[in-house]
Amino acid sequence: MAVNSADVQGWGKMYGIGVGPGDPQLLTLRACDVLRQAPVVCVPRSTPGEMGYTWEIIRSHLDASRQEILHLHFPMTRDARELETSWGRAVDVAAERLAQGKDCAFVTEGDPLLYSTFVHVLRQLNRRYPQVEVQIVPGVSSILAAAATARVPLADGDDCVAVLPATGSQEMLELALSRFDTVVLIKVSRAVGRVLDILNKLHLEDKAVFISRASSSREEVVGQVASLRGRDLEYMSLIIVRK
Amino acid sequence: MAVNSADVQGWGKMYGIGVGPGDPQLLTLRACDVLRQAPVVCVPRSTPGEMGYTWEIIRSHLDASRQEILHLHFPMTRDARELETSWGRAVDVAAERLAQGKDCAFVTEGDPLLYSTFVHVLRQLNRRYPQVEVQIVPGVSSILAAAATARVPLADGDDCVAVLPATGSQEMLELALSRFDTVVLIKVSRAVGRVLDILNKLHLEDKAVFISRASSSREEVVGQVASLRGRDLEYMSLIIVRK
Repeated sequence: MAVNSADVQGWGKMYGIGVGPGDPQLLTLRACDVLRQAPVVCVPRSTPGEMGYTWEIIRSHLDASRQEILHLHFPMTRDARELETSWGRAVDVAAERLAQGKDCAFVTEGDPLLYSTFVHVLRQLNRRYPQVEVQIVPGVSSILAAAATARVPLADGDDCVAVLPATGSQEMLELALSRFDTVVLIKVSRAVGRVLDILNKLHLEDKAVFISRASSSREEVVGQVASLRGRDLEYMSLIIVRK
Repeated sequence: MAVNSADVQGWGKMYGIGVGPGDPQLLTLRACDVLRQAPVVCVPRSTPGEMGYTWEIIRSHLDASRQEILHLHFPMTRDARELETSWGRAVDVAAERLAQGKDCAFVTEGDPLLYSTFVHVLRQLNRRYPQVEVQIVPGVSSILAAAATARVPLADGDDCVAVLPATGSQEMLELALSRFDTVVLIKVSRAVGRVLDILNKLHLEDKAVFISRASSSREEVVGQVASLRGRDLEYMSLIIVRK
């Protein structure tokens, strides 16, 4: 028992860090602190060899001469088994460092608990290494940055807000759009034609605004959403419908 | 025309600044920058004489010797006319400074566009002083901080999320709780008994967690939500239901 307890105490902490939507100035003070101090920084990427978007946000806060930067590969796939394997492998790689008493900072775009890879990392870590203490540093989500860029209020007073993927069922999209004051449709790129059809049917086209990569140098805002039809859109695109 | 154009160009900018959920370390770098540089900082408060929660978050970044701190009064009331009057007055007071070419930073807890006084300020400003340029600095919302504190994922993959006041209609609460993967109930303090009845009816009590003042020194997390019945709760309380 004593040995186990010592083991647990010897493990490093895992930090899940939200680094915000794209503008490095939208990092929090706390995220900067943890990034500067963590001996190990875990950076997810979907394409081997590419440094990725998150890297651009955090790189100026890191010091490769005294920090280990772990680039962890998470494939962009819907294959559940491949995903489980990649999350598990990422957690194992981090756990090797944690077991040596080193704190790890796992960075994610936006916020770590809102449509983020860290949700899976957290689940696998809790299951396989329950002795590891986890601290989560919330971040500015891309939804908030998109609203800020477009200057569209998300909610006020007793408003109800729904956030859901544009790739969901027709019935769920119509339910959200007919019953909620504000609807944020994420993952719009793969379903824009369909979303436009529904908005048109519900007479909501003029209440919608499209935002892509809010706060980054590649930011785009489109008020006339009908013009999006047939366009090849960024993966990180969303539409806010505010009645 | 030339005079008008010069007038417009002479006006200061209005910044809507999200200062995060409570921990001053959850300010963004951008919020800190704007707060340090703005000649005028507008701080809302609901009780005259009291400095309020937002003030505690930002005070260390301000310098009263070279910045004007405007404490603006927003009464905690549901009287629509009284609210309109107080928002209008706040905008007029800020506009006097803006007209002198001074930038104003209007601070709000959490994010400026998600259940924030700034939504009203923005509306009044757009209507009465359309010449004023507005920039919004998004912030970490209390919802994200609450999830981080409780280590509850808000969404993953194709999940749907609803955010709504616990004071809303029974039908809307049941609809959200039965159809969405995650439901965030805000303004729980005034309706906790009712929320517990609905959670019980839908067999969701064990999926719920209560969080109050996340990230602040007064933070509280309650996993057994049934124990909240009859308690006097903080205004800034919420319940996350994650299926």
